Amino acid sequence: MKLLRSLLVIILFPVFLFAQDRPNIILFLVDDMGWQDTSLPFWTKETEFNRRYHTPNMERLAREGMKFTNAYATPVCTPTRVSIMTGMNAAHHHVTNWTHIQKNTPTDMEDSFFHRAEWNYDGLSPQKDIPNTVYATPLPQLLKESGYFTIHVGKAHWGSMGTPGSNPYNLGFVVNISGNATGHPQSFKGGDNYGNLPGKTTFHAVQDLNEYYGTETFLTEALTLEAIKSLDVPIRIRQPFFLNLAHYAVHTPLQDDPRFYKKYIDAGLDETEAKYASMVEGMDKSLGDIMDFLISKNIDKNTIVIFMTDNGGLSLTPLRGGEAHTHNLPLRAGKGSVYEGGIRVPMIVKWPGVVKPGTKTDQYIIVEDFFPSLLEMAAVRNYRTVQPIDGKSFVPLLRNPEQGDADRILIWHFPNKWQPDGPGINYKSAIRQGDWKLVFHMRNGQKELFNLRDDIGETMDLALQHPDKVRSLSSLLSSQLREWKAPMPVVKSTGRAVGFSDEQ
Amino acid sequence: MKLLRSLLVIILFPVFLFAQDRPNIILFLVDDMGWQDTSLPFWTKETEFNRRYHTPNMERLAREGMKFTNAYATPVCTPTRVSIMTGMNAAHHHVTNWTHIQKNTPTDMEDSFFHRAEWNYDGLSPQKDIPNTVYATPLPQLLKESGYFTIHVGKAHWGSMGTPGSNPYNLGFVVNISGNATGHPQSFKGGDNYGNLPGKTTFHAVQDLNEYYGTETFLTEALTLEAIKSLDVPIRIRQPFFLNLAHYAVHTPLQDDPRFYKKYIDAGLDETEAKYASMVEGMDKSLGDIMDFLISKNIDKNTIVIFMTDNGGLSLTPLRGGEAHTHNLPLRAGKGSVYEGGIRVPMIVKWPGVVKPGTKTDQYIIVEDFFPSLLEMAAVRNYRTVQPIDGKSFVPLLRNPEQGDADRILIWHFPNKWQPDGPGINYKSAIRQGDWKLVFHMRNGQKELFNLRDDIGETMDLALQHPDKVRSLSSLLSSQLREWKAPMPVVKSTGRAVGFSDEQ
Repeated sequence: MKLLRSLLVIILFPVFLFAQDRPNIILFLVDDMGWQDTSLPFWTKETEFNRRYHTPNMERLAREGMKFTNAYATPVCTPTRVSIMTGMNAAHHHVTNWTHIQKNTPTDMEDSFFHRAEWNYDGLSPQKDIPNTVYATPLPQLLKESGYFTIHVGKAHWGSMGTPGSNPYNLGFVVNISGNATGHPQSFKGGDNYGNLPGKTTFHAVQDLNEYYGTETFLTEALTLEAIKSLDVPIRIRQPFFLNLAHYAVHTPLQDDPRFYKKYIDAGLDETEAKYASMVEGMDKSLGDIMDFLISKNIDKNTIVIFMTDNGGLSLTPLRGGEAHTHNLPLRAGKGSVYEGGIRVPMIVKWPGVVKPGTKTDQYIIVEDFFPSLLEMAAVRNYRTVQPIDGKSFVPLLRNPEQGDADRILIWHFPNKWQPDGPGINYKSAIRQGDWKLVFHMRNGQKELFNLRDDIGETMDLALQHPDKVRSLSSLLSSQLREWKAPMPVVKSTGRAVGFSDEQ
Repeated sequence: MKLLRSLLVIILFPVFLFAQDRPNIILFLVDDMGWQDTSLPFWTKETEFNRRYHTPNMERLAREGMKFTNAYATPVCTPTRVSIMTGMNAAHHHVTNWTHIQKNTPTDMEDSFFHRAEWNYDGLSPQKDIPNTVYATPLPQLLKESGYFTIHVGKAHWGSMGTPGSNPYNLGFVVNISGNATGHPQSFKGGDNYGNLPGKTTFHAVQDLNEYYGTETFLTEALTLEAIKSLDVPIRIRQPFFLNLAHYAVHTPLQDDPRFYKKYIDAGLDETEAKYASMVEGMDKSLGDIMDFLISKNIDKNTIVIFMTDNGGLSLTPLRGGEAHTHNLPLRAGKGSVYEGGIRVPMIVKWPGVVKPGTKTDQYIIVEDFFPSLLEMAAVRNYRTVQPIDGKSFVPLLRNPEQGDADRILIWHFPNKWQPDGPGINYKSAIRQGDWKLVFHMRNGQKELFNLRDDIGETMDLALQHPDKVRSLSSLLSSQLREWKAPMPVVKSTGRAVGFSDEQ
């Protein structure tokens, strides 16, 4: 036996070295955080918002990695999360809006003009034949099967209760902490038991955190501590890991993170905005704590850290302070909108040895690209999925940030009513190619054209000046949506679905 | 790279074979199930209860393994669970009663004669200096560190909310499903979302089971399905696993398991008892499903399955039907009592290749023995714990069931008030050596002596006939309790702790 053990040590050595050759991957996914909610400028200029927020660890990550100045998500959370898990565009997976915690409950608001589109309002399903879901092979399933230790911590929100997609274990996660069907926490406060207050508990109370009940531990911190604990085993046995650390921050309810709140009140912010800023900095501290932990375990050199958020910053009042639709300036509008404020998000990738520190790329990418990118990072090849993959790996960009592709087409599709109408909000599609972006309004068939290089705020509609561009983009958009059988709202008066943009 | 891969396959082969050499261990722990709640007789005779209940899978497990006819737990749940995790006797770890879900909340009932004993009412802690807890190195921590994949599913109940012991991840579990500070579920019904009903949710609502909300899935079944899912990774990578499958069944609330309920109504049981019997059979089905799963994965030959329950069957009315204190006959009394009905429990161990199928042992063992036994099964040697270990491995018994030890001393200590006084319930200690058992009553200093060989029902107090035996057992009991600094209740009128049995 002793001989066998000695032999084992010798044998295991190259095995573990091999295992270590595959990088660990941490996807640090923030909720509802906008492009400007950071002291790290993603625009060409430093803005007022960059001066308002303090995110030293995002700055640090950017110094050690690559900043994506044109990274896109979808206008609301579930579509983004399902795109990451499936590699499909939202117009293709048909989970175009956020999913309700209860199944068979479309979240669309009532509208006087439209019936709702036939979207997949129960979300993602790893099992076939679940009504109102997209059936797909989820990213962590492939990573797990290829030998990764897969961990989910925090907000899941991939499918409604009573469906398999509500359970992260069904999606290929080995460990799940606090992830289920809800899209936001009942409370971020340990003193509130994160909402677990008998008689007042809703479906949004955060699960699995008994340890912190009655303490001052803010939810962001509790999830960080749990995430760090969960890494013990893969680090110990040198198994590569995938950590999907999906913070509930900075989604509503906006609450003061006591570690940072006073500082923002002292800086003159109103209470709501001070709460928001404190949640942003609490989230940033989590990022720093994770980075420090990697160093302490001496695995920082072999760990990819990806910072991403799931949609633009919320910009409705009075949920936010100040004036509505201004919280992502210079970008127009915010969460829910197909204008840049709703979809352009902060993204940073650190990959030691591959990404040159302190670099940036201006090439546009979109969130379904994460699926093939993460699999490429993990050296998973020739994988099989039940769904076709729409995303394109951004790994080549990591190796060469100048490698632009101005012909690439990105598409957003939101045939839903999320909230009362606002700029770019409800019943829109959009397409970007190069610097050009076309926005299609389903209510009235209007097509707006913007040049993002000259007009990042989408203030000047150039449709009349460039009818050919409108026509070509509209045609590209429509044929792609048609191919994807993208759901469209139904006109109540006629009972017929709205036509695609090239039919109007 | 291709060469490296081929090399790897060759290299990995003996490694995985080695890993497989260590057996998987499943501890199938049932809550509040008594010694007679089964169609498998643990007594010398088949009883009415054996004919009432249907547990074909316990019978099957016994055919394939060894039955322990004299296995003991503590009178209530948390002390048993903490003993398993620490290897300590309850009188030594001082978690002598069940822990409240909220910290700093002793669960003792008010008593007119006694102040409460200074017990560890916040449970077990893997961290030092947590008030009102026992600090110990938990069993799964040692198993994890030795290379086991450790999984907890179901009821945890090791520590109160707001303490580290409430979080199974702190105890060395890699995966935790539904385990926290609660000791019973709010509901066993999927249709009730296991208690997660906004406005009505208590701390006892079961977490992590979104997938089954609104379905007919009984909690026992949901936990079984999740346990099976959790085994995917260790089976795939051939890592030995420890699964602590701790069912909430058959604890209150008694609810009908719809798969079996009607059968017991048809057999003439009242509604309460039919519910109970249906929960017992649902639990038994879980055992069978797990055994079938092991066969389907071809790992049954290398997996130890241990069946155990945490205390005697509940025998209070109207929580149970029929007459109080009769549900464990021929044993006296039930849960909460130091009489046999409260502490003697069904236990079966299957260990292919080690345990001879269809055997039984009459040697008495106690639940703190699980700690050293499981570590011995897992071939973990020379481990270090911060606590001294009181338990004794029963592995030698598995190899030779005749290897009796009539000199061994077992001790029970319950210096608490659990419910209103009943037979053997509240303020008792007890000691067994050979066939002799002494029960010490703290209220009045009474000492009862029973001979369990002749009188399993503890109906004949032989204290007057055998004063020497009373004296020697009382002395053994007292010196052990004194050494363990066992907590004792305080007499209100004098302000002094009750003396041990040899002082009275």
